[in-house]
Amino acid sequence: MLILVTNDDGIHAPGVAALAESLAPLGQVVIVAPDRDRSAIGHALTLHAPLRADELTPGVFAVDGTPTDCVNLGIHGLLPATPDLVVAGINRGANLGDDITYSGTVSAAMEATLMGVPALAVSLGGETYTASEYSNAGGAALFLARKTLQDGLPVDTFLNVNVPSGRIRGMRLTRQGRRRYADMVVEKLDPRGRKYYWLGGGECDFEYLDGTDCHALHEGFISVTPLHLDLTNFQSFECLSLWNADYPVG
Amino acid sequence: MLILVTNDDGIHAPGVAALAESLAPLGQVVIVAPDRDRSAIGHALTLHAPLRADELTPGVFAVDGTPTDCVNLGIHGLLPATPDLVVAGINRGANLGDDITYSGTVSAAMEATLMGVPALAVSLGGETYTASEYSNAGGAALFLARKTLQDGLPVDTFLNVNVPSGRIRGMRLTRQGRRRYADMVVEKLDPRGRKYYWLGGGECDFEYLDGTDCHALHEGFISVTPLHLDLTNFQSFECLSLWNADYPVG
Repeated sequence: MLILVTNDDGIHAPGVAALAESLAPLGQVVIVAPDRDRSAIGHALTLHAPLRADELTPGVFAVDGTPTDCVNLGIHGLLPATPDLVVAGINRGANLGDDITYSGTVSAAMEATLMGVPALAVSLGGETYTASEYSNAGGAALFLARKTLQDGLPVDTFLNVNVPSGRIRGMRLTRQGRRRYADMVVEKLDPRGRKYYWLGGGECDFEYLDGTDCHALHEGFISVTPLHLDLTNFQSFECLSLWNADYPVG
Repeated sequence: MLILVTNDDGIHAPGVAALAESLAPLGQVVIVAPDRDRSAIGHALTLHAPLRADELTPGVFAVDGTPTDCVNLGIHGLLPATPDLVVAGINRGANLGDDITYSGTVSAAMEATLMGVPALAVSLGGETYTASEYSNAGGAALFLARKTLQDGLPVDTFLNVNVPSGRIRGMRLTRQGRRRYADMVVEKLDPRGRKYYWLGGGECDFEYLDGTDCHALHEGFISVTPLHLDLTNFQSFECLSLWNADYPVG
């Protein structure tokens, strides 16, 4: 088996090494990861500039791009063959609810799915990030990687996996939760009296509803959310279908 | 009515001015857009650096960030009140199928939806991008903006609108199409003989299936795709629910 491992915290983050080590029993693991922290980058793809890939040690590539770039370049340029699986992580911090649309970790798994390769995104919740917590998360990644390689994933679907810190009570299949957003912008003045702004300043709360990713993690369970590529809201077709009829054709 | 207009092609692109002009009959239009081209940036959010907003003319702000930043900063910092509507575009080029996950235009509308503000993403297909084509797309944006303000949108749902070039045959409600990805990476050598890579080099084809966004646009119809924030693949729960039972709880 050939496994591509990537992340968005950068190639020197402890999570990517822990993940590669955990998956080593499955076969050959190649790491292709950003050369620095590219968190909150979403599904950004670098089209306006060339990319460099620096092979730090055999099978470990640092790329001056986004996690999406790493998966794309890994699959089509750096790896000796198409990988059997792409695993992104272990992210330092959970990727839950609506926040997954910003996540470089989740976007890397999405990119692999677009390329037809089964994929997992693995994140570690909590606040301590100890070696034993990364090892627990790696164990969950190995379990789900084995299942994925054996049974396959549903078409166009990848798994968003969040592992709690501390004792793990089990594993739950969950849906993507919601977040309530508060005022997010902090306004400041620079030394010359000109305004500037920081995003992400406000408090945010997840809705801890039963069945969601955030609820499972909060209860001490590994959360496994199957995500797909189709954003279409099919349920809205009925109420919106009347709009077309009114459009004036000239 | 207060309308926030943004884009990902940058504040000096003709599409954003055409859009603001088209929507002017609805009320006050404020433009908050990136200071340069930020295409293919996805749902990237700038958290590691402060942002500047330069008011070029009254109600026209250039921000040194992503389209997502612009919406976030516009809603929480720059506008006098929460806008009634956010419209992103008019993008130079269609945003169809799986490609929407890379799109700054679509991500701007997604960000507004996360903030609880109704939103449209508007893109112009074809290859010529004439003033009259932008004006046609602006007309479609105005029609759908009026509908949205009158009737509202389904919860957590925004519209991805693609307008064809040339004569418009009508408007269709569509689902997100699929794309077949080919080899996407071009490998080159720099003057010193070191490798570098360009992404996006290969040929890509949309699957022109009836009912999809790409099919409607190809047939000369305005494509209106209702998208939502929930990526959960609920249909996969049945086959994946057996996995949890096997997880060893220690």
